[in-house]
Amino acid sequence: MTKVNPLRSLAFLLASAVACLAAGPDLMPLPAQYEARAGRLVIDGAFRVKVSGYTEPRLTRAAARTVDRLFKQTGIPTPQAAAAGPATLLIECKGPSKPIQTLGEDESYTLEVDPTQARLSAANPLGVLRGLETFLQLVDQDGNGLGVPAVSIHDQPRFPWRGVSFDVSRHWIPLDIVKRTLDAMGAVKMNVYHWHLSDDQGFRVESKRYPKLTSLGSDGHFYTQAQVREVIAYAHELGIRVVPEFDVPGHTTAWLAAYPELGTVPGPYEIERKWGIFDPVLDPSKEIVYQFLDNLFGEMTRLFDDAYFHIGGDEVEGKQWQASARVQAFMKKEGLKDNHELQRYFSRRVQAIVQKHGKRTEGWDEILDPHLPKDIVIQSWRGQKSLGVAVQQGYSGLLSAGYYLDLMQTAEFHYLTDPINEDTRTLTAEQQSRILGGEATMWVEMVSTQNVEARVWPRAAVVAERLWSPQSVRDVRSMYARLETMSRRLELLGLPHRQTYRLMVERLAGGEPVGPVKALADIVEPVKIYARSDSGKYTQFTPLNRLVDTALPESDAARNFRYAVADKDWKTVRSTLEHWRAAAAAVRPTLEKNGLLLEARPIADHWARTAEIGLEAVEFAASGRTAPSGWAGPRLAALDEAAKPVAETLLMAAPGVRALVELAAGGSK
Amino acid sequence: MTKVNPLRSLAFLLASAVACLAAGPDLMPLPAQYEARAGRLVIDGAFRVKVSGYTEPRLTRAAARTVDRLFKQTGIPTPQAAAAGPATLLIECKGPSKPIQTLGEDESYTLEVDPTQARLSAANPLGVLRGLETFLQLVDQDGNGLGVPAVSIHDQPRFPWRGVSFDVSRHWIPLDIVKRTLDAMGAVKMNVYHWHLSDDQGFRVESKRYPKLTSLGSDGHFYTQAQVREVIAYAHELGIRVVPEFDVPGHTTAWLAAYPELGTVPGPYEIERKWGIFDPVLDPSKEIVYQFLDNLFGEMTRLFDDAYFHIGGDEVEGKQWQASARVQAFMKKEGLKDNHELQRYFSRRVQAIVQKHGKRTEGWDEILDPHLPKDIVIQSWRGQKSLGVAVQQGYSGLLSAGYYLDLMQTAEFHYLTDPINEDTRTLTAEQQSRILGGEATMWVEMVSTQNVEARVWPRAAVVAERLWSPQSVRDVRSMYARLETMSRRLELLGLPHRQTYRLMVERLAGGEPVGPVKALADIVEPVKIYARSDSGKYTQFTPLNRLVDTALPESDAARNFRYAVADKDWKTVRSTLEHWRAAAAAVRPTLEKNGLLLEARPIADHWARTAEIGLEAVEFAASGRTAPSGWAGPRLAALDEAAKPVAETLLMAAPGVRALVELAAGGSK
Repeated sequence: MTKVNPLRSLAFLLASAVACLAAGPDLMPLPAQYEARAGRLVIDGAFRVKVSGYTEPRLTRAAARTVDRLFKQTGIPTPQAAAAGPATLLIECKGPSKPIQTLGEDESYTLEVDPTQARLSAANPLGVLRGLETFLQLVDQDGNGLGVPAVSIHDQPRFPWRGVSFDVSRHWIPLDIVKRTLDAMGAVKMNVYHWHLSDDQGFRVESKRYPKLTSLGSDGHFYTQAQVREVIAYAHELGIRVVPEFDVPGHTTAWLAAYPELGTVPGPYEIERKWGIFDPVLDPSKEIVYQFLDNLFGEMTRLFDDAYFHIGGDEVEGKQWQASARVQAFMKKEGLKDNHELQRYFSRRVQAIVQKHGKRTEGWDEILDPHLPKDIVIQSWRGQKSLGVAVQQGYSGLLSAGYYLDLMQTAEFHYLTDPINEDTRTLTAEQQSRILGGEATMWVEMVSTQNVEARVWPRAAVVAERLWSPQSVRDVRSMYARLETMSRRLELLGLPHRQTYRLMVERLAGGEPVGPVKALADIVEPVKIYARSDSGKYTQFTPLNRLVDTALPESDAARNFRYAVADKDWKTVRSTLEHWRAAAAAVRPTLEKNGLLLEARPIADHWARTAEIGLEAVEFAASGRTAPSGWAGPRLAALDEAAKPVAETLLMAAPGVRALVELAAGGSK
Repeated sequence: MTKVNPLRSLAFLLASAVACLAAGPDLMPLPAQYEARAGRLVIDGAFRVKVSGYTEPRLTRAAARTVDRLFKQTGIPTPQAAAAGPATLLIECKGPSKPIQTLGEDESYTLEVDPTQARLSAANPLGVLRGLETFLQLVDQDGNGLGVPAVSIHDQPRFPWRGVSFDVSRHWIPLDIVKRTLDAMGAVKMNVYHWHLSDDQGFRVESKRYPKLTSLGSDGHFYTQAQVREVIAYAHELGIRVVPEFDVPGHTTAWLAAYPELGTVPGPYEIERKWGIFDPVLDPSKEIVYQFLDNLFGEMTRLFDDAYFHIGGDEVEGKQWQASARVQAFMKKEGLKDNHELQRYFSRRVQAIVQKHGKRTEGWDEILDPHLPKDIVIQSWRGQKSLGVAVQQGYSGLLSAGYYLDLMQTAEFHYLTDPINEDTRTLTAEQQSRILGGEATMWVEMVSTQNVEARVWPRAAVVAERLWSPQSVRDVRSMYARLETMSRRLELLGLPHRQTYRLMVERLAGGEPVGPVKALADIVEPVKIYARSDSGKYTQFTPLNRLVDTALPESDAARNFRYAVADKDWKTVRSTLEHWRAAAAAVRPTLEKNGLLLEARPIADHWARTAEIGLEAVEFAASGRTAPSGWAGPRLAALDEAAKPVAETLLMAAPGVRALVELAAGGSK
């Protein structure tokens, strides 16, 4: 007994679970076609990469970056100069990409690896960039050491628009996090960084024409135009487009703090510190508003090189419009019968401005309007049905509903959300072709610079796979196994998402033992959807240093336990439950001592009780005996109690144990 | 039984060990005077820092940095603008420091914390910088949350020269690692960054006068003069002097690859790729050598602002001098009877050049020469005796012997090495006053950019404490407990030393379970002193990705086990041994599968056997029964076997179990 007991630690379990599930190519996203071949290409100090055919500085830099990353992955210094002979990795690029990356450019590539060489060929540098990520993901270890298994890969994306939409207004997101986000996006073959640059809580980009936007609207936290150019250039190196969003006419409190004359009410306005949907809104009846937007967007469309320009348009309630005699008179004059028509009027004017400056308009569902030109793109936060309406009207669209990383949903949920579902499957092929892809979104009300990356990564990678890989790729367990590897790869790439989790756990522990606090943080999840931000308790200045801020969006420990129950792996089930019971007891004194953890005391009690119930239940389930009638009832009630939010977290041990109890109870309750 | 077993994981043990030992102020280095007071200063969003009295940009930036770091530590956003009322932290600075930091400037400070305010006062900005680090280290958590305990601290350093000597030649150390090293040095109140910029394997700083030094002598890995200025400015912000070393006349192969005419033999020379002491040496008989050094050192003394300039002078065997008719004739002419006198001649000429350029000379023991002016500083790699000789002759000196971080010795060994020991205690007070302090050294033959920081930190912090805190501060267990906290603080500061360890462990594990591989890496240490570099197997291009490269210099797990044995904490001893036995079994299959770990297979067998022996022994020891005679012998023999190096690592489980066996065997063998 004692011999194997120490093995029964969650660390070991997790690790084993990961290992045994990681069958098949450990790649993310999975390629369109993958064929294993015999043999293996050795990676050693003689590694050499060569670019043949068409080349450009971006390609040679990408090759050099690949060598650096190969060193990070393998620890093998690869002194290019020193290495002679044929290239280990031969890059064959047929021609250039567009100078400014455009929607729908060819990203396909072919990667052929045999024991003598890896050959990566693509029509243009974009395909090469995608293929290099695949090559780096293929590097692994066998009995002889580090290398790449022989393989033939033919790969291209399912959708041409695969993005991350990142709010940098509600909390300030510094440049280094922006760049790391781009690094990670490149690693999972995403190609659009949607930069949500303004909102009620801050205007985050320098305007030389309207400097008060940042001097009065940003608390000094904004990107200079030089930094914006730096980000665009950095993204271009990785084959990523940068689409800016300036959200109008709502979500503009920070604008109005700087230029109140643009508002529907006189003001004065202050930068919004809370979260939610607010009344301040631009006044569509004022010509100066359109002049302002013409000047500002003129400046911004010159700064941002992408063909698309996002004008937001979401969540306008228009209370102030209704209360404004001026606006009401204007509506009457223009024959606009309600706020909806007024916003349509506004959107049309703004779209014309964007068009005048040579860009295509992107906006949220709300801007949809049959009178707009068909070249606009609708980003749908409402869902596939709304997306279907847009493409039926001849517009193009993106799905973001179901990809909101800030809502603390599972990777599985995001992974199985497909732009083509029962609502869109019935569209014509031509209509479906206008569904361009999707964007994972990160809204930053409830995150700080310390935990935001642990909220975006690694989960965004499963959205990347959904949008790149064939629709048939849907094996959830395979996804989770590969996601664990991907998470490690991202940390090797420089993302600190796993490190910051440990640092925040250690902060909670203070001088007390870290192990039990880590076990607690590992088994809880933050409450879901808008439970926190709707509470109204939070502002831009609220400390985000609690258990709920530390806990990851999804508990691996809880999921692995649920899998063990489903698999009737009673050994794992028992040892996990024993570990939980012990950890719940071990963490209790720390919860008493640490101010940051006092609120979590009830969780330890629920956790201990949940483990006890599970240990009773597994004896029935494992033996195949059905629990006596009346046994399950009170226990399920206790589990319902344990499953309720405490300190804005959910004890994720409860659902798995509930399944176990139901198993133990058989039909009877 | 099962109830507590999962608790018996090393993670829990370590964490507990740390917690229960961290009594007293959890500061490193410990202050000269510390007096706890009643009450506590709360840290919340209203935190505000104010600089009163003398101020300068460096101080206001330090205050701002303190606010940022406080956020990192606490997660509490501290919007200075928003905060009103009196300062939470009041900085009272009496006057300026010297524009260029000098040896022996006042670094003392007083920190008074009461429940209403923290007051930090110092004679100059240097003292403020030291005090700010103490303030940040005081922030902790109690039942009410985050704050600083009320305290009265009067603090000043024991020695004025507390440095890290960092070789950036043998392996290239990029700028970001240099800066992080400075950050960490500042955090532990060190004040000299000794930059070993040239050696046989590379010349690492741009010379505009002699560009071939880097174009032919650096593989393109060098710091531009702009970067050097950046580092000096960065160090100045942290109150750290930057002393450059250009090692002559030996250790100059990279120079000679660029300018062979300076050599004793004609050449041609190539950058050295191996490790050791090599024959190439400057020719002291050539006037062009002194002209070259005059020009180069003229350029470098203008680039580096510190008053001291390090000329190396170590490890010259002079074989080429003996073989050179030219040099022999020169020695005869000058009446120099041996290589030793020839080097003294050379040193005198070079010292005169350094002096002419307005700097004081620093060098290793070998330059010691009664004829040199008394303002030079000897850095002793030979030890306190050699140091004593120097100060007796009227020179000043630093200790580095005993502080070589690259030799993989314990923190305890470095911690207990004191510049004032039996060899120097007998010196007069006046002589002792010329012992300026010491420098931890990091020679980088056997490290890469991936593991170098985990080899320097956190151990360098114990050298910092030795040189800052009173000599009487020598409690080793307290040191280890505080070192664990310090290690976490350093990671919060941005050092990746714990993260890189985990990433390297994960690389070793490949697709296999990480837990057992981590347990293995946790219990081994690299072989000590020069066992590796003397093997001759290694070059600049050798992969450093093995278990020996991953393992930390000192095994916390092994040390905590030895402590448990010494404390007769049989519960911990048993559970650790059980964990080891299980982990040794669990890791075995991975060692078979992974090429990088094949060499470690014997370790798993020794480890399992060691655990078995320990489990037998603890039954005797715990029960107080003495093991039958004849029992211990074969087991001690097995432990001797287990203690032998395998794959250049040492199984550190063996010594603790040996102590246990001897305990069990009582007198009998």
